Amino acid sequence: MRLDELSSAEFKRRMESRPVVILPVGGTEAHGAHLPLCTDSAQPEMVADEVAKRVGGLVAPPLRYAFHSSTRDMPGTLTLGLETTRMVVQDILEALVQNGADKLVVLSGHAGSSHLVALKQACAAIVRGHPDVRVMMLSDYDLAKEYPVDQKGDGHGGLIETSRMMDIAPGLARRAEGEGQYVSHGYMIVPDPETSMPSGYVGAAHEASAELGRRVNEFIVERLSEEVERSFGGVQ
Amino acid sequence: MRLDELSSAEFKRRMESRPVVILPVGGTEAHGAHLPLCTDSAQPEMVADEVAKRVGGLVAPPLRYAFHSSTRDMPGTLTLGLETTRMVVQDILEALVQNGADKLVVLSGHAGSSHLVALKQACAAIVRGHPDVRVMMLSDYDLAKEYPVDQKGDGHGGLIETSRMMDIAPGLARRAEGEGQYVSHGYMIVPDPETSMPSGYVGAAHEASAELGRRVNEFIVERLSEEVERSFGGVQ
Amino acid sequence: MRLDELSSAEFKRRMESRPVVILPVGGTEAHGAHLPLCTDSAQPEMVADEVAKRVGGLVAPPLRYAFHSSTRDMPGTLTLGLETTRMVVQDILEALVQNGADKLVVLSGHAGSSHLVALKQACAAIVRGHPDVRVMMLSDYDLAKEYPVDQKGDGHGGLIETSRMMDIAPGLARRAEGEGQYVSHGYMIVPDPETSMPSGYVGAAHEASAELGRRVNEFIVERLSEEVERSFGGVQ
Amino acid sequence: MRLDELSSAEFKRRMESRPVVILPVGGTEAHGAHLPLCTDSAQPEMVADEVAKRVGGLVAPPLRYAFHSSTRDMPGTLTLGLETTRMVVQDILEALVQNGADKLVVLSGHAGSSHLVALKQACAAIVRGHPDVRVMMLSDYDLAKEYPVDQKGDGHGGLIETSRMMDIAPGLARRAEGEGQYVSHGYMIVPDPETSMPSGYVGAAHEASAELGRRVNEFIVERLSEEVERSFGGVQ
Amino acid sequence: MRLDELSSAEFKRRMESRPVVILPVGGTEAHGAHLPLCTDSAQPEMVADEVAKRVGGLVAPPLRYAFHSSTRDMPGTLTLGLETTRMVVQDILEALVQNGADKLVVLSGHAGSSHLVALKQACAAIVRGHPDVRVMMLSDYDLAKEYPVDQKGDGHGGLIETSRMMDIAPGLARRAEGEGQYVSHGYMIVPDPETSMPSGYVGAAHEASAELGRRVNEFIVERLSEEVERSFGGVQ
Amino acid sequence: MRLDELSSAEFKRRMESRPVVILPVGGTEAHGAHLPLCTDSAQPEMVADEVAKRVGGLVAPPLRYAFHSSTRDMPGTLTLGLETTRMVVQDILEALVQNGADKLVVLSGHAGSSHLVALKQACAAIVRGHPDVRVMMLSDYDLAKEYPVDQKGDGHGGLIETSRMMDIAPGLARRAEGEGQYVSHGYMIVPDPETSMPSGYVGAAHEASAELGRRVNEFIVERLSEEVERSFGGVQ
Repeated sequence: MRLDELSSAEFKRRMESRPVVILPVGGTEAHGAHLPLCTDSAQPEMVADEVAKRVGGLVAPPLRYAFHSSTRDMPGTLTLGLETTRMVVQDILEALVQNGADKLVVLSGHAGSSHLVALKQACAAIVRGHPDVRVMMLSDYDLAKEYPVDQKGDGHGGLIETSRMMDIAPGLARRAEGEGQYVSHGYMIVPDPETSMPSGYVGAAHEASAELGRRVNEFIVERLSEEVERSFGGVQ
Repeated sequence: MRLDELSSAEFKRRMESRPVVILPVGGTEAHGAHLPLCTDSAQPEMVADEVAKRVGGLVAPPLRYAFHSSTRDMPGTLTLGLETTRMVVQDILEALVQNGADKLVVLSGHAGSSHLVALKQACAAIVRGHPDVRVMMLSDYDLAKEYPVDQKGDGHGGLIETSRMMDIAPGLARRAEGEGQYVSHGYMIVPDPETSMPSGYVGAAHEASAELGRRVNEFIVERLSEEVERSFGGVQ
Repeated sequence: MRLDELSSAEFKRRMESRPVVILPVGGTEAHGAHLPLCTDSAQPEMVADEVAKRVGGLVAPPLRYAFHSSTRDMPGTLTLGLETTRMVVQDILEALVQNGADKLVVLSGHAGSSHLVALKQACAAIVRGHPDVRVMMLSDYDLAKEYPVDQKGDGHGGLIETSRMMDIAPGLARRAEGEGQYVSHGYMIVPDPETSMPSGYVGAAHEASAELGRRVNEFIVERLSEEVERSFGGVQ
Repeated sequence: MRLDELSSAEFKRRMESRPVVILPVGGTEAHGAHLPLCTDSAQPEMVADEVAKRVGGLVAPPLRYAFHSSTRDMPGTLTLGLETTRMVVQDILEALVQNGADKLVVLSGHAGSSHLVALKQACAAIVRGHPDVRVMMLSDYDLAKEYPVDQKGDGHGGLIETSRMMDIAPGLARRAEGEGQYVSHGYMIVPDPETSMPSGYVGAAHEASAELGRRVNEFIVERLSEEVERSFGGVQ
Repeated sequence: MRLDELSSAEFKRRMESRPVVILPVGGTEAHGAHLPLCTDSAQPEMVADEVAKRVGGLVAPPLRYAFHSSTRDMPGTLTLGLETTRMVVQDILEALVQNGADKLVVLSGHAGSSHLVALKQACAAIVRGHPDVRVMMLSDYDLAKEYPVDQKGDGHGGLIETSRMMDIAPGLARRAEGEGQYVSHGYMIVPDPETSMPSGYVGAAHEASAELGRRVNEFIVERLSEEVERSFGGVQ
Repeated sequence: MRLDELSSAEFKRRMESRPVVILPVGGTEAHGAHLPLCTDSAQPEMVADEVAKRVGGLVAPPLRYAFHSSTRDMPGTLTLGLETTRMVVQDILEALVQNGADKLVVLSGHAGSSHLVALKQACAAIVRGHPDVRVMMLSDYDLAKEYPVDQKGDGHGGLIETSRMMDIAPGLARRAEGEGQYVSHGYMIVPDPETSMPSGYVGAAHEASAELGRRVNEFIVERLSEEVERSFGGVQ
């Protein structure tokens, strides 16, 4: 249930049962020529909706912007500043808490390390400011990694992500034409990090399938539902 | 066309024709018991999609959060800070410009004066920083006001807004039970501005109709398309 | 009574009766060739002094700088940043509150919407931080608009403002040579907003008179005194 | 000549001769029971007006607020934040430079070390950003110290300051009743720095005279005029 | 060679050959009862000194403070704010660049993910602002991980870190009494992250030896020297 | 005793006796051709170590960076921003207070007025935020000035500083070749303040001696120990 489809009165009533509230944080980012720019948005939104159904939670209006660094100069990547990212997420969480939410999940479709640190900072500020509020924060890729298939060398826009998107948005996603290579810059902080991904993605995206995607997506929904129920106690 | 349904390569190609890019800025805000919290989001998103169709433009991923002051303590209002609002919108516009966009429209569903000033600041920074970029900024309510029906005393969640939502999202919106009063605080800056709207909306929302809404919505789409074509010259 | 003409001891004594404290916020801004740059300062300072006399209040040292956008590139306009404007006003109000003031009036001579939002933000922060403090915020043009004369199309440096200044500072102000036109940019955020006012003012400034100004000024002083007495209860 | 008594057109013409522009930075601060809160404002404003006459300069609208630390908890002191102080002064200077000013004098009536550092930071930013602009910054007390009378132990609100104010504002200032002591806290940063000045001033303010004040004021005006002419070359 | 042991003239001469400049970023952080608070400082300082010797580089004055989150409430951890951390490192790098440095290495002894993101942000700002400057950024633990010994489950203050410290600072470090356990909080952002390390360290610190430490330290110095020479071309 | 040579457990135990904690704030700054860049670091670190011994205190990890303005363009000066300086020192002090420290001494080797104001701001914030914490802040040059030798005209890198460094770091410091002149810019804020010190130092550095340095250093250690004991009461 999307929270903003409720009226003010319905929302107030719904919050009395202290539901888990999930904030999907997406992004608008280049993912090769085979995946849409909304790839990072579509995945956590689908997961959030499914998990909310299972645990009786609410889904906050998704944020479809994130901090992107390695792909920032590829066509279609729309990046927020890192500090802006922290602020907007922290403000949303704070507003949810002011509305009585005390079980929050921030689910990020983008798994860049700087971006996740911004989210973590936002969450940590909420937890420090509100002792009674519990916050979970993760990328759905933290869970995808647990799926029992060889993921060595698979990355941005690769086998798993392409498969997941072929399941979620079949009209927008398709198998890539070949394998995406990763070119390491060692420990150098380079001005053109997009050169790490010459084809715009990393991994065996040419072997992706909607069937694999379906299984991974189910796995993630299942695993996150478990995590939520385990971490927040007997939620509804 | 939603911009983030394109792949990076498709987006790049599409930008070569210098399309108008429309950013719908919504909000999550209490609008009485008869309208959903997404009221400020649903309206500009619909308008943006329709106008983009007519002028051959692209719609950027909507932002469903805004700065809210008078309703900030009503259940379901999720407000960003004012500075956060400026930053996130400015970052998005800057990213669009970095991707070659030079005809931008920021369309806000929320028409609070502070919120609009934040958007204006963001737009002005873009215009000052990029002499070749042109930016339009308005609330769809700037245009709704021109619709030839008596709107005296009509306001937040009132006759026009309710009618529009009954047209756009019939499953989520309905006629209110009575007229919403506005209680003035004169020039006082009060700590509890929600007391200005005891029923959470202002105006004859009990007289709303999907038919009126349809006509107002068409009027707005028509008017904005005209403004866009007039202001940005012969766009596609 | 200007607050800073008192000694520390006199001020302390005077504050024991909890007087209204009025902060005149002026500006240094181009107002055509017929009005001085201090136009936005002279008006609220005069009004503040007169109202303070009537309600037994104190006038804080005026601030003669503001945020200006549309005239910012005209000779003589000295603008603060918008955030600076908020900060300086908020700091002054906070300092007054620390000194025991609990009835504050911020009276702005400049009526630009962004500037007023900055003042509103400052006042709102004070009200949220100090539940016992009441704050009024307005431009004297909010009251001038109520004066019963046709003001349609009258604006910056126009009939009303010129007349008021001819009354307040006859040595510095005079009738303009012709009518000032307003050129609309529709909803575009333009880099050269001064082009909206080709002659630097808007309205029938050539029909201004000190006599009209005197009557408007008296009206404003009367109306603000009423507002202050009504809003702050039986003040001295 | 106060700059803001000119119209936009007169100001533009006047700036063509590249006059020195003096910004008097005052303050609102407790100065014992014998001096008004405007003591730090009245002095630099008088000096600025006189020096401007002699060197053909312009006086910018005075700022009557400053950063105060040691007296911040005395009745009537209205302090800005230190960062606010820097920002407001830097914004004013930047605006003057945008208007063609290239010979700037910042004259501070308040001589607190933190306050002067804030002004210095503002001036240094202007000088770094505008290689053709020259900026002088001082407190009129930098010059008062050169006046040939024993000033050992004289300080805030003491012999010199009281005498100067008796000359400038005879209706507001008077001799103090006794000598003001200074109580040292050594190198401790204390929460109650006002305890350093039990009587609110430091020095032989009971021996002050308008005649001494007149001589000191003349000396300062003379000295600053010399400094300005020497530092800015043959100004008008 | 520590850069600040040179005089200004010697430093200027030395910079003409464009040496690699290494900035060791340490930290002051609890590392169990067996390691000193300077553990994160001592390691990168030793490595920086040794690598500088091999590649003919200079070592900038070490920073002995960092951002710490998981141990922040353990006795002796002194954390900077995350934004402060970014600012201080960015300012130091900027100052080095202003002094002609164009081959920079930021070597962090602390390997917390948020801390490393702050360093990365600082480095990225330098690289974007100075196209001719190359910057390497890493933790010496990025290299320690490559050392061929089983490090599964080893972490903060564990086998490797204890061994390294026993080699570097034998008077301050010693073997721990038992194995340190890690207690996972899953994906929860907890207010008391120190509960993840009940004994203050993680891993087989009771099996540490100076001999292992010596070999790991040599390995790291060797590997970093290689990385530096490979990444910065034929340095001296 | 350097605080970071203790383990977490030892530190905790040591803090139970509420020792004075001294933070040496150094700098990396050009001091002529005869003194090393670490001159501002070496002096307060030595003084802090000696005073800590005498009063039973702890020395926090030194900060070897500061805000420098007049020498900022001389080779080897590495300056932090002024706001960064305040933030890093305030964060360190706050962290010490969180660890139970309530008697803090900030000892700065650099005595620039802006730098000292940044430190004062940091200390004042701590004192205001923590009523039970007492903070001393000074430069060791505040004490050096009391040493009974003619110091007229002596300054940066001059007689006293050179002598002190010849005592502290004989391998790095030596007598200068001649006297360093100071060239005044009056009250101008100049873009090239280094022109005030053509030889990079000011004073009779050619007459310096390790013996004088030894006596001054002893004097400073003695005086600061006295100040500490007097100000913090009977410390250990």
